[in-house]
Formats: sequence, C-alpha cells, structure tokens
Amino acid sequence: MNLPQHGSNPQYIYDKMGIPKPDKWIDLSANINPLGPPDNLMKRWVDFYNEISDYPDPHALLLKKQIAKITDVDIGSILIGNGGSELITLLGRVFAGKNVLIIEPAFSEYEKVCRANDCRIFYHQLNESEWKWEENEMAEKLDDMDVVFLCNPNNPTGIHYPYSVIVKLIKECAQRNIFLIVDEAFYDFLEDYVPITPLVNKYEHLIILRSMTKMFAIPGLRLGYMLANQQIIEKLTTYQPHWSVNTLALLAGQVCLQDGAFVQNTTGYIRFERERLFSFFRKEGFAFSPSQVNFYLLRDPLEKNQLSLFEFLLRKGIVPRHTYNFPGLEGKWLRFAIKSTEENNQLMEVLKDWKQRP
Amino acid sequence: MNLPQHGSNPQYIYDKMGIPKPDKWIDLSANINPLGPPDNLMKRWVDFYNEISDYPDPHALLLKKQIAKITDVDIGSILIGNGGSELITLLGRVFAGKNVLIIEPAFSEYEKVCRANDCRIFYHQLNESEWKWEENEMAEKLDDMDVVFLCNPNNPTGIHYPYSVIVKLIKECAQRNIFLIVDEAFYDFLEDYVPITPLVNKYEHLIILRSMTKMFAIPGLRLGYMLANQQIIEKLTTYQPHWSVNTLALLAGQVCLQDGAFVQNTTGYIRFERERLFSFFRKEGFAFSPSQVNFYLLRDPLEKNQLSLFEFLLRKGIVPRHTYNFPGLEGKWLRFAIKSTEENNQLMEVLKDWKQRP
Repeated sequence: MNLPQHGSNPQYIYDKMGIPKPDKWIDLSANINPLGPPDNLMKRWVDFYNEISDYPDPHALLLKKQIAKITDVDIGSILIGNGGSELITLLGRVFAGKNVLIIEPAFSEYEKVCRANDCRIFYHQLNESEWKWEENEMAEKLDDMDVVFLCNPNNPTGIHYPYSVIVKLIKECAQRNIFLIVDEAFYDFLEDYVPITPLVNKYEHLIILRSMTKMFAIPGLRLGYMLANQQIIEKLTTYQPHWSVNTLALLAGQVCLQDGAFVQNTTGYIRFERERLFSFFRKEGFAFSPSQVNFYLLRDPLEKNQLSLFEFLLRKGIVPRHTYNFPGLEGKWLRFAIKSTEENNQLMEVLKDWKQRP
Repeated sequence: MNLPQHGSNPQYIYDKMGIPKPDKWIDLSANINPLGPPDNLMKRWVDFYNEISDYPDPHALLLKKQIAKITDVDIGSILIGNGGSELITLLGRVFAGKNVLIIEPAFSEYEKVCRANDCRIFYHQLNESEWKWEENEMAEKLDDMDVVFLCNPNNPTGIHYPYSVIVKLIKECAQRNIFLIVDEAFYDFLEDYVPITPLVNKYEHLIILRSMTKMFAIPGLRLGYMLANQQIIEKLTTYQPHWSVNTLALLAGQVCLQDGAFVQNTTGYIRFERERLFSFFRKEGFAFSPSQVNFYLLRDPLEKNQLSLFEFLLRKGIVPRHTYNFPGLEGKWLRFAIKSTEENNQLMEVLKDWKQRP
C-alpha cells in the first residue's frame, strides 16, 4: 500500500484511502503530549515575536548549556537539530555506504535515510510475542556491522529496554567498534528511566538522539538534540545547514527544559489513561503492545490484517497510524497515541461499535 | 583572520575581536528589511500559537500553490527550504565531487558546502572596478564545469545583473549541460526586476534560489524556496529531512506573499536611504559598490585594509560585516546593511568621526 510515510496531517491519509474526510477527526496518528505545550510557553509567546527578525544563534549556546546540565555531558558533545529527523538525516550522510543494522520494528526514518545514502541495511526483527532480543542472537547479528539503530523506548511498540539491557548492548558495540545510535525520542514519558547520557563521555561509539517536540507538544517548531563524542558532533556540524534551528525552537526549548513539573504531570496523566485503555482492550479482546509510554500497538486478533479496522476507524473520524512501512509489522497492527480522556473515551466507543458491527 | 563566517549575532564578533561589548549596538551585518516584518504577520501571531502542536505539512502545499502562481512554474518544480542555507546545503550534497565554478565575490555558503562535499572549486573573480564579467572570459571559465553558482543581486556588492545578461549565461550553460544556480535571495529589493523564473520550465539546468527572510524580516523563522526541473527537486527531496520547514515559517510565508504593498513600501524606503547614504559617501570620500538593493560594500580608500575602520566602528557600537571570507575581498571592504533612517544617520555620524579622528 502506498500510504503516507508518517502520522499527522490526516488529510493525506483520507485522500490516499479514498475515504471522504469527516467534518471533525481525532488524530491519534501523531505521538504528541495531549496536555499541549506548557503554559509557560504560551505566556512568552507574544514576546517571542520580537525575536523573529534576528538570525538564530547558530551555536545555540544558551540551550546547549541547559542540556549539558541535564544530561551530564560537555557542550562540545551536543548538537541541536531541526527536529530529530534532521539529526537522523545527518547521521545517514555520515554513515553513507556503511553496513547498518536496524532493530525492528522502528521509526521508519532510519531506513529511509540509510537508503538515500546507499547504506547496506540489515534487520534484527523483534518477535511480536515479547518484542525482546536474545543476547546471543543479537551478538551474531552484529558481525560486520558499522552502525546499529535502536529506538528506546521503542516506536511503534512503546516498549522500554531498561538500563542494564542497553548497557550490555553499548559494551558489545564498543568492543566491535560499532556505532550504536539510541533514539530516545520518547524517554521523558517514562516513569522509571535511568539516564544513559553520561555514558557518552565514556563510550565514543555511543550516539543518543532526543526529541523535544513530543513531550512539549511543539512538533510544529522542530527541535531535537544529539549527544555524542565531540569528533562525531564536529563532523555532523559540517553537513548541517547554517542556522538550521529556528529562533522559536531555541527559545521554546529554553522555556520547556525548565518545566520539570509539566513533565511529571504528563507522565502521571499518561499512565492513568494507558491503564484505563489497556483494561478496556483486555476486556474487549484486543491485542496490544505493553507500552510504557504515550502510544501503543493494537490489533483485533480476529482479523487477518487490520485494514478493515483501519477503514472503520477513519470513517468514524478516528485516525490511527498504519504500520505498512514498519518492517515486520506491515499492517498487522495499528498504532495509537494516548490523547485526552475525552478522545480516549471516543476511541473506546468506536472500538465497541467495531466489535458490535453486524 | 578567524572571524565568524556570517553576519548577525554580533556578540561573537566582539568576542573574537577582543573588543568590549557596548551597552547597545546597531547591527548592520545582517541584510534584513529595516521596516521589520509586515503588520499582517503580527496580527496573526497569537493565532499561530494554536498551530505549533501539529506537525508541519511536509509537502507545504498551500505555500507552494502561492509560489507557483507568483513565479509561473508548476508545483512539482518547487522545493520549500528551512532557509536558503538548507537549499544550498542540499545542492552541495547532490553535486558532491563535481567541478563547481563560483562567481566571486559571493555568499560564503556556496564555497563552504562545496568543500564539505569534496567538490573541485573554481573561481571567476569579478574585478572590483566594475564587478562585471566579459562574455568571452566567462565562456573560457565554463570549460569542464558541472555547476555554476551566481548570486544575483550579488551578495556582498548589491549589484544586479540584468535579465539579458543572465539569459545569455543560462543559454551558455544549457549548451554545455552545466547546472546554473542563480541565487536570488535579494531579488525582491530590486525596483526593475524582470523575472527569470518562467525559464525554469524551458531550461532543465537552471536552478533558482530565493529567500523569504530578508524582505519579510523573518530570519529567525527560516524560509526559502528553490525552483528547478522536477527531477532535480525530487532528487533533493530524498536528502531533505522530513518536516524540515517548521509550521510558523510556512504560515508566515503564506501571509507575507500576499502583501505586495509591503514590498513596494520597502523598496521605495530603501532607495531613498541608499541615495542619501551614497551621496554622503561621495562627499566624504568613501568608496562603495553601486548597489541596487539593501546593502553595499564600503571602504576608506586612504586605508590599505579596513581593519582599523572595522575596529573603530565596533567600538562605537556599529557592527558591519567583515569580508575576510569573501574570496577576492579578504577584508579590503566592509559590508553594511541599509537600516532605518536613524540608524543610517548614526552610521554617517560615526564615519564622520572616523574621518576627523586625530
């Protein structure tokens, strides 16, 4: 199926599927914090207007100082990006032509940029019963690899691989001089996260990616960062466009990173809603991935593929994310963001309708 | 001299020069419209806040439709960029390793991205008495080239090469299968511009770059576009990060492109100020480039290099753009943006002080 590569912008999915657009829809295809941006950001918004006529600071010094403090790495080990997708694109450029292992299912941009840069792509497919890897099996897969992409917490499953598991993989990669890219775009939705960021100072082959647009609900502004060895950061910087990160993203980032209470409120809210949804799914006989963050995979085990369910939801104004471009999933699951109580209720209503359809 | 590569962000130039930062400065190092962004943009600013929690439209359809209308090209021939510098970076990627001719002096990003992509770089240096090229001489230089960069109106001189001259160069390049990149970042400051944009439909080797941040004073938002043959656009798109252009840039672009009166007011204002400045320079014995846009080169012909003048101005709180990284200029000139009447007056005051220094 030739569907849009990403969630969000539901108009494109309706067009492609040939389904008439409803007057209103609930977009569950983008994994954005349902509480919206922090209030502190709104309070500053009018002031920000005065900053748009100056070029952004190309070195993003103020934001880097804040990130250095939070992550326990030096400023020279930080690269600010025009969203996580720019950072992934830059990595693809630097690792052009290399042997790349992608632990799948995973965010589809890894594969896309590797293809654009003529990498040789290999997969380690996680088994959908548990979505975990065996150490021996993984060790075998690492032979002859130059780069590994791991998304943790995983997108699209929402499963988090804990500190001990990641450290083992970091060490395994370090021994073999393999660059390990850990995409932590959703780490701040976890309630029991143990930071791996200080390990960047010790392991020169470790690269960590983070997004600031999911937790702080600012995907329109584009903001992410990378932590890595200074030499990698310098190399990537030569390929990054000048002034790549806009002024508003920088300013918003500075405001958001000061707002610890906002993050805590969010994770509590998401946990509550997630448990509510999961107990409904259990009761109604839906299969789902045991996510620890703000999205999850779902399927109706009575259906071979989920296309009928996908269409049913779209017609009812509920927009999930298809999984046709997640290798290993290929449409067998649908991904849903956890949104507001009301929106989650509406999803459950429609899923009930689905179960009770004639 | 190891000075910052670009104008704007004056704090970095003060630091590098070891000059104490004054309480206030007038930044003439960035070529931004002194009238600030259009009022229509300010009126919409608060509404725009509601859009930051959605991903930008990755296809930028609404903005592309407006640009297609203005430029007389198809939507498939348009690429929206995260500022002109992203588009230049993408071009460098596509033309990696090629023979590239840069008509100098020119915006320093061309050379920077060509170096990052291992291009073989050649120069055609314009003579500073007239800043023009001879056709024969240029024809010789084109031998064995794959790509030519031309900035028109030229940055840093402000000189505009008219339609007939550009069309000759387009034809010359077309005959030899050379890609001609015409950077029109400042075209909308001209009062007598004849558009070359429809020629994109005819010449598949013509690539036009435009910025929207100079005229509309929104460099903090980052927005530019490229016009070229559809195949080139598709190739470049594979290298562009997903959602590279942020939502505010897209929305601002849509508002600004509707504001023809704003552009007309600006060009009139700039012409008036330019004539005022130039007649002062003539009277006081400064040399300057006969710019037709919103910036110009200036030097004191009594000085061998302009470093003393540069320092003098910085100490007085006037920040021009050094020219050490413009090949062929190497500090022999300073570049100044035309700003508000008051700011231009202050520049003239300080230049008088310079002439009358002991």
